[in-house]
Amino acid sequence: MADYQAPITDLSFLLEHLIKADQLWPQLGLHDADPETAKAILEEAAKLCEQVIAPLNREADETGTHLTAGKVVVPDGFNEAYSAYCEGGWGALGGDAQYGGMGMPKTLVACVEEMLQGACMAFGLAPMLTAGACLALNAHGSDNLKERFLPNMYTGQWAGAMDLTEPHAGTDLGLIRTKAVPLEQNMLGEALYAVTGTKIFITWGEHDMAENIVHLVLAKLPNAPAGSKGISLFLVPKHLPNEDGSLGARNTVSCGALEKKMGIKSSATCVMNFEEAKGWLVGEPHKGLAAMFTMMNYERLTVGIQAVAVAQASYQSARDYASERLQSRSLSGAQFPDDPADPIIVHPDVRRMLMHMRSFNEASRAFYLYVAQYLDIAKYSQDDKTKSQAEGRIALLTPVAKAFMSDMALSAAIEGQQVFGGHGYIREWGQEQYVRDIRITQIYEGTNGIQALDLLGRKVIANKAVILNDYCSEILHFVQHDLSGEWQKEGAKLVECIHEVTALAQELIARAGKSPDVIGASAVDFLHALGLVSYGYLWLKMAHSTEHIQSGGVASEGAYSAEFLAAKQYLCRYFLNRELPRVSFLAERIRSHSDDLMVMPASHF
Amino acid sequence: MADYQAPITDLSFLLEHLIKADQLWPQLGLHDADPETAKAILEEAAKLCEQVIAPLNREADETGTHLTAGKVVVPDGFNEAYSAYCEGGWGALGGDAQYGGMGMPKTLVACVEEMLQGACMAFGLAPMLTAGACLALNAHGSDNLKERFLPNMYTGQWAGAMDLTEPHAGTDLGLIRTKAVPLEQNMLGEALYAVTGTKIFITWGEHDMAENIVHLVLAKLPNAPAGSKGISLFLVPKHLPNEDGSLGARNTVSCGALEKKMGIKSSATCVMNFEEAKGWLVGEPHKGLAAMFTMMNYERLTVGIQAVAVAQASYQSARDYASERLQSRSLSGAQFPDDPADPIIVHPDVRRMLMHMRSFNEASRAFYLYVAQYLDIAKYSQDDKTKSQAEGRIALLTPVAKAFMSDMALSAAIEGQQVFGGHGYIREWGQEQYVRDIRITQIYEGTNGIQALDLLGRKVIANKAVILNDYCSEILHFVQHDLSGEWQKEGAKLVECIHEVTALAQELIARAGKSPDVIGASAVDFLHALGLVSYGYLWLKMAHSTEHIQSGGVASEGAYSAEFLAAKQYLCRYFLNRELPRVSFLAERIRSHSDDLMVMPASHF
Repeated sequence: MADYQAPITDLSFLLEHLIKADQLWPQLGLHDADPETAKAILEEAAKLCEQVIAPLNREADETGTHLTAGKVVVPDGFNEAYSAYCEGGWGALGGDAQYGGMGMPKTLVACVEEMLQGACMAFGLAPMLTAGACLALNAHGSDNLKERFLPNMYTGQWAGAMDLTEPHAGTDLGLIRTKAVPLEQNMLGEALYAVTGTKIFITWGEHDMAENIVHLVLAKLPNAPAGSKGISLFLVPKHLPNEDGSLGARNTVSCGALEKKMGIKSSATCVMNFEEAKGWLVGEPHKGLAAMFTMMNYERLTVGIQAVAVAQASYQSARDYASERLQSRSLSGAQFPDDPADPIIVHPDVRRMLMHMRSFNEASRAFYLYVAQYLDIAKYSQDDKTKSQAEGRIALLTPVAKAFMSDMALSAAIEGQQVFGGHGYIREWGQEQYVRDIRITQIYEGTNGIQALDLLGRKVIANKAVILNDYCSEILHFVQHDLSGEWQKEGAKLVECIHEVTALAQELIARAGKSPDVIGASAVDFLHALGLVSYGYLWLKMAHSTEHIQSGGVASEGAYSAEFLAAKQYLCRYFLNRELPRVSFLAERIRSHSDDLMVMPASHF
Repeated sequence: MADYQAPITDLSFLLEHLIKADQLWPQLGLHDADPETAKAILEEAAKLCEQVIAPLNREADETGTHLTAGKVVVPDGFNEAYSAYCEGGWGALGGDAQYGGMGMPKTLVACVEEMLQGACMAFGLAPMLTAGACLALNAHGSDNLKERFLPNMYTGQWAGAMDLTEPHAGTDLGLIRTKAVPLEQNMLGEALYAVTGTKIFITWGEHDMAENIVHLVLAKLPNAPAGSKGISLFLVPKHLPNEDGSLGARNTVSCGALEKKMGIKSSATCVMNFEEAKGWLVGEPHKGLAAMFTMMNYERLTVGIQAVAVAQASYQSARDYASERLQSRSLSGAQFPDDPADPIIVHPDVRRMLMHMRSFNEASRAFYLYVAQYLDIAKYSQDDKTKSQAEGRIALLTPVAKAFMSDMALSAAIEGQQVFGGHGYIREWGQEQYVRDIRITQIYEGTNGIQALDLLGRKVIANKAVILNDYCSEILHFVQHDLSGEWQKEGAKLVECIHEVTALAQELIARAGKSPDVIGASAVDFLHALGLVSYGYLWLKMAHSTEHIQSGGVASEGAYSAEFLAAKQYLCRYFLNRELPRVSFLAERIRSHSDDLMVMPASHF
């Protein structure tokens, strides 16, 4: 397998030309985040990821994590990598400056996330979960809790974990049984609760890489309303801190078992037992689910980032293998007659797989940065209209980012494995691990089916497609007004697809009024259609920018090689010709007789 | 995970109504294979597979195989299962009666293969490789070699292995380096050779389940022509038999290592070292590749069967889970208000996944039997024209069976895992193993990309689509003449797609004449289009038969429940509405500017 190479050039290109960070960041008052600082951050992160973390990935998958006497034993190198991550201050990158964070924009943090996840996703989950817990705590915790916990979490000295799922309650969290009983006792100046229950699928719920783990736990207060409106959020640390901030008594939180999984084997997926464990309420009683959802948009985007990060690693190896592996001759005649065979990259079918991978990977990267810019705008903009538009975009595009990016990443990684032929199936070559690792991104943080329902039901139909139409107008405007002659011609394919998607939305609004099952029957196809047009849009934006650079329209001082710029244009055409047309098929399927899914009685399955 | 249930009802339905075995077998002079015998064979095979083999599958994946002091240690239960398989005479089922085989038709053998592979694919590979070796030996070996080896291989006392690949030679076998040097010595009455070289990816190349292993090895004779025209086939047994048939000296064949793989972990994938190992030539010198290809059609079909077999196991578990797992409420209102939630099968998106799986699995089963019938006809028919048509169908449809069935099986198994949500990612539930196991079927026995090239280049373009058009005429004739009113209307969708496929073939013939890369650029899409129309055809045939049964047109004596018959019709409509329309997308892609794959210089990747 190839050494992981952080995609710094592409990230810089996107920050500069897609996001136009040099304008966006100052507009939002983010004066610490200038392009020079960003460049230094990307380069430092790349060093850590390439040199310290990525070399652990393959072997750690073989070792896995183990539970010994209640302790999680991590693979060799993880403790050192975690220390290096913390010492570099990376846990603080996106954190709130008030509590010791660096307050960097998501558009920059996301780039670092891709590198970290691409280097070793199983390891990367630990900082990711900590960052998620920090977001939720920062948004809903009392100032007191934030002061006591956030600074230690930003340094990574204390890690975070999210404890939601129970054996019988996954998608449907309203069914959880974990209880929180108020104690007649205060600690650290706040009312204390005793939390009891069992949680499953708790990523990095237990480990010793950090000296403490801060669990954010969903539980029900006595007499809580039934269902999802009766869920509250609690902070339950592994070690209770003392009043002076030092580490105190061990709390009654323990790891009962580790799951054996398909992939991300070197991450610990814990069964966590809470036995009257002490904790504090975060936010309002019974508003726990809403509190979790505040950070969901960030977490879901990061899951999409994980997926493309790993698919990119798969691409790098597949590209190198295709350039080196000699096998058979080109159908148009030997290309390297002095060698025993041609490198397989001469075969159109191998190129098809590589271009498929790359066209989705690079569009996914552009897409997560496109969505991340709205997270920054929504958080930092002072203008209500701008803010509100950004919130709409986030609502609409987050489920697409999570589900479409992960679906496309899986298919990319499957191609990346296929390029290797038989060697792709052998663990030592690394390609099959990428498939196994990516597979979870389609499942956790809300399955992709749930993302699709969220998109079509809540984000499109519920608001009568207002947000969708606003987004599509932006795309149409770009194609029709910003593109030059040749690209405008290419863009005509996208325009057709945009009209298709907006028309579908109207039809679905009408049909769903009569039969709500229409939403479930069409949701995944609709999400994929919106994903495809979004990627078509971003490819045209990228191609447009490269043309602008080539024509000397911007002084990039040779930052991008001629190959890099030309490749964007080749890939844009490839995507519009070969991938975008899938929209018509999806439209036909959505318009097909959707009863076909519902009429067969359950007993016939 | 659900206990594996052999799909006997569906197999019986297809043998009776699709293949019309009661007419086909006697026509071919296969008088031992009557419907009663077939029924008894299916039931006995089902017992063995359900009760003895399937229970080993999950645990064996965890245990894997291990190499200890040159010996392959197999998981618990494998030795006993192998003995039970042999004692039942299953290894002889399709074997040549002249050497102790039962001479049963492939249409029946294929049904048993599905059960075996569905029960435990890693185990099933051992009998499968033996059967393949028997076919090649029977077709090309001398009578002397056949008499000495085949009877012991049919009993399973001796197993078989196929030794083709070398580290630098996979798809391109012309590059192999293994040498065979004639010895001035005879053994068992035939000239002896010394075979030296290293082979990789040798499935069940070493184990002790059988007392001997018969390797069929590709090697080059001294002064062999370069490339694939200089390859010969040798029989190299692990133990050299004595003149009296008893087991003699150990040959210098040894297993150097086992590969660690993504799946089929309990099968042994061996690096085999041959050090002047003694063996005999099978067939003509330098005609080894052709000898291997005789059995390729059988083996490739069996790989497709493996894929659907495992996808069927995945479906069974997913269906059961969807009926039992309570989570959330139906969008149309609670269906089981007394339960804490509805079973997830009420959700359209879960049904979409289940119907997707089942519509492909059942069409795949019909398809492998449809192809198997031509293998029987080609082998046993006395009529030259019938035989030659059958050979055409086999040539055309074998690559589709191998590649389309395995591609669709992977996507089915991914859905089957998705139905389980988070539990689908946990090994103990079994769903993720199916994905890992199926994945190899897209790779081995010629990658699916190679199958597609074979289809489009050799089987369609080279004969100017004569075979394809003959096949498509059969489909058109069926839809237009055999279908009744309502189904004829449904069939109109298929007619359109058939015209699309035949038109594409003509366009590709014309384009390939100018640019051979067009073949590689279009092959996979074309194969998928042909797969889809084939499945549409078989769904209509199945629906048509069920209608015939329902109307009392045949006396099936209640063999098929009303649910079974109705489900076929629901699934047929589902397939035509939701899956078949993909053909237009594939057509658009094939017609797109195919240079987009070739114009980007290799340095830009």
